[in-house]
Amino acid sequence: MSAIRSFDELVVRLSQCERRTRVAVVNAVDVGTVDALCEALRYGFAEAILVGLQPDDALLKKFAPYREYVRQIVVEGEDEAATRAVELVRNGEADVLMKGLLHTDNLLRAVLNKEQGLLPRGNVLSHITLAEIPNFSRLLFFTDVAVIPTPTAEQRVWQVRYVDKLCRAFQIESPRIALVHFTEKVSPKFPLTLEYRALVEEAQKGQWGTTVIDGPLDVRTAVDSAALQTKGIDSPLQGLADALVMPNLETGNAFYKSITFFAHATVAGILQGTTHPVVLTSRGDNSRSKFLSIATAAISIQ
Amino acid sequence: MSAIRSFDELVVRLSQCERRTRVAVVNAVDVGTVDALCEALRYGFAEAILVGLQPDDALLKKFAPYREYVRQIVVEGEDEAATRAVELVRNGEADVLMKGLLHTDNLLRAVLNKEQGLLPRGNVLSHITLAEIPNFSRLLFFTDVAVIPTPTAEQRVWQVRYVDKLCRAFQIESPRIALVHFTEKVSPKFPLTLEYRALVEEAQKGQWGTTVIDGPLDVRTAVDSAALQTKGIDSPLQGLADALVMPNLETGNAFYKSITFFAHATVAGILQGTTHPVVLTSRGDNSRSKFLSIATAAISIQ
Repeated sequence: MSAIRSFDELVVRLSQCERRTRVAVVNAVDVGTVDALCEALRYGFAEAILVGLQPDDALLKKFAPYREYVRQIVVEGEDEAATRAVELVRNGEADVLMKGLLHTDNLLRAVLNKEQGLLPRGNVLSHITLAEIPNFSRLLFFTDVAVIPTPTAEQRVWQVRYVDKLCRAFQIESPRIALVHFTEKVSPKFPLTLEYRALVEEAQKGQWGTTVIDGPLDVRTAVDSAALQTKGIDSPLQGLADALVMPNLETGNAFYKSITFFAHATVAGILQGTTHPVVLTSRGDNSRSKFLSIATAAISIQ
Repeated sequence: MSAIRSFDELVVRLSQCERRTRVAVVNAVDVGTVDALCEALRYGFAEAILVGLQPDDALLKKFAPYREYVRQIVVEGEDEAATRAVELVRNGEADVLMKGLLHTDNLLRAVLNKEQGLLPRGNVLSHITLAEIPNFSRLLFFTDVAVIPTPTAEQRVWQVRYVDKLCRAFQIESPRIALVHFTEKVSPKFPLTLEYRALVEEAQKGQWGTTVIDGPLDVRTAVDSAALQTKGIDSPLQGLADALVMPNLETGNAFYKSITFFAHATVAGILQGTTHPVVLTSRGDNSRSKFLSIATAAISIQ
């Protein structure tokens, strides 16, 4: 199958799948979450299990056309609802966990619960964002804008592993992963560049299969072939990176905010490291973004 | 006078000034530098002193209409040319130093020379970028994308001072300065947020005059009023920041690269901390960007 290079292609691919992804959503009582779920139901790739508070009548009415694929479990309390939804995922009744209208902390507490949560001991929790940017020819994956402030070398290996796997779920056969810095020079002055180099050398030795890893590169030499040429830099990514691994959360966050606000990017996001996909959207996200996050979760387990 | 809110306004303002800014440019032998200078000459706000290698005939011809405002000092060798240009600035024959086609290190060596350079002992060297971003209503100043990898608290105070001063040169009477982070929460978990808070409290006490400083804010809550409201955050900047002080060089660089590549921003840049403005453009910059950097240098000393 050819690689999925846009969100439209993602949705088309999912709507051709036989299997519906069962989404356990906590407190689907805001219009953004409900619209996102209904869109996934309309395209036929999801089932919804509404856990927690009961949506009001106007919102419930939106689910009417998809009644056979919607189930309700009324639970009072954010912690209780989150715990119940996690339980559904753990016992195989749902495939994906999704946050509706509740505090992120309350959802995460249930996800991270050592006995009854979704994060296996030893796994590193991280996050991947996907962006479709006007006039840019492909989906751009990047990590991490949400979880790890300053990744250690070991955490970074996990981040690369996660983004590699998600790229492959999008049928990208040789994911091109850029390790982002402000310089292209490897130097002991900036220890991060040495960490990057170690990863690049692993990839050169074939330890990452067909995945191509390069860095340090800046955002532009990672994704813009012309800029790479102008700077006279040789990179196996050729300015065609599929994914950017950010040096720290400040950089990831600023990148996220600038492409969404100034470049009008459409984004989707998904937690990494959990046994099952977790869609953790924020209040600022519109329903399209929440819908595309469900789609990303769905494709990652097809 | 009203604030300068776009590069066009900047150029108009400068072309109305009586005084021409004398630019000592090192090795103006590339078309980008020459075109930038000729544009500044054409708008009548600059004189050029071409120090170093002689431009070829085709490039020299471009200067012909402005002959009376162009002077040549032929010097062989990059270090020698840089030293000579710095000397012109030091002895009052030029107002601004500009980099043409030479290695940045060679120019900086002359600028940073302890006896004969342009950086007073104790001053902190930094850099400010200005961006005009399509569909964004004002110029956005940000620092630092070029010089200080991880600013100390003291260096950050200098950065704020510099950006405050440059905003004021653009006739912004109450510069709004955002201290950028990935969170809006002040917490000992992230020491930078405490440093930010100290600066914000200084501003609240009036120690920064009419300048408004707030942070931690993320890029979006700094510049987007709607996002600020959605997040329910109270900020004296009201999402109308003129300037972003970045937490580190990785963030500054990624922001710079993403707004230029993905949002098609036009940028200008200028070194800070030196006795006289230094225009330090890079190979990747087009002639428009170099021209606007000269304009920024010129307005900063009007």
